[in-house]
Amino acid sequence: MAAAMDHAGLAVLTFEECLELVAASGVGRLAFLADGEIEILPVNYTVDGSAVAFRTATGFKLEAAVERAVVAFEVDAYDEIERTGWSVLIKGRAEVVSEPDVVRRLESSGLRPYAAVPKPEWVVIHPNTITGRRIPAAG
Amino acid sequence: MAAAMDHAGLAVLTFEECLELVAASGVGRLAFLADGEIEILPVNYTVDGSAVAFRTATGFKLEAAVERAVVAFEVDAYDEIERTGWSVLIKGRAEVVSEPDVVRRLESSGLRPYAAVPKPEWVVIHPNTITGRRIPAAG
Repeated sequence: MAAAMDHAGLAVLTFEECLELVAASGVGRLAFLADGEIEILPVNYTVDGSAVAFRTATGFKLEAAVERAVVAFEVDAYDEIERTGWSVLIKGRAEVVSEPDVVRRLESSGLRPYAAVPKPEWVVIHPNTITGRRIPAAG
Repeated sequence: MAAAMDHAGLAVLTFEECLELVAASGVGRLAFLADGEIEILPVNYTVDGSAVAFRTATGFKLEAAVERAVVAFEVDAYDEIERTGWSVLIKGRAEVVSEPDVVRRLESSGLRPYAAVPKPEWVVIHPNTITGRRIPAAG
C-alpha cells in the first residue's frame, strides 16, 4: 500500500513505523521551554514500552521542562548523498522517575550517558502523539 | 588551551567553532511554537553570513513561527560507536525573505530541498545567540 503523502511531499509514517524507527535509534533531541525560550538538548535514550527514557544529572535545567505540560522529542536520520531521510516527533509529558521498580527496569536497559558526568536521574517522556515523515526516494 | 567544561561534563564550543560546525553541516532542526506546542522540523539549510537560511513551501505552518519572537535551530552529529559528538543551538528570529537581492544571493547557494515539492520561500534565522557543546573523547 502506498504511504499517504502530506502537503510538503513527505510520506506519512504509521504509528508502528515511528515506534520501530525510534526503537532502532539511540540519540534524540528534547525540546522544551525554559524562561520563555525553546531549548534543544540532544540525549541518548532507551525505549520503555511506547515511552522514551534518558538519564540526566540532578538539578539540571531540564527540571523546568518536567514541570511543563508538553515537551517535544525528535529522532531523525538523513543521508545527504542519497537525499533521503526520516524524522519522528513525539510530543508528551516529561516526568522524573522515582518509583524504584521503574528505575530498576530502566537501569537494566544498560543505557549509559556518553559524557562521564554522573547522571543518576531518569526522565521518561509519556507520549501524547507520535508522528513521523519520510522523504520519498527520488524517482 | 583546554576547552571550558560545563556542569554536564561537556566542552563548551567557542562562537567560531559553532559557526564552523554549522557551515560544514547541511541538515538542522527548527523548533518553534505553534498553537502552544513545540514543533520540530528538520530542514536542509545553507549559511548566509552568520545566519541560517532554508527553503519552505508557501503557506506552511512555519509562518506561525515567523511571527514569534524567537525560534531555536539545532545542528548536531553523533558517533554511537565512539560515543562522541557535538551540538550547536542557535536562537534567533525567523524571517521570510522578501528582498530580491537577498533571495538572489540565497538562490546562488544552490540549496535545493530533498523532497520534490516546490519550496519557493526562503526563511532566514537571524541569530541572537549561538552556543555549542562537544562530548569530550573518553580518556
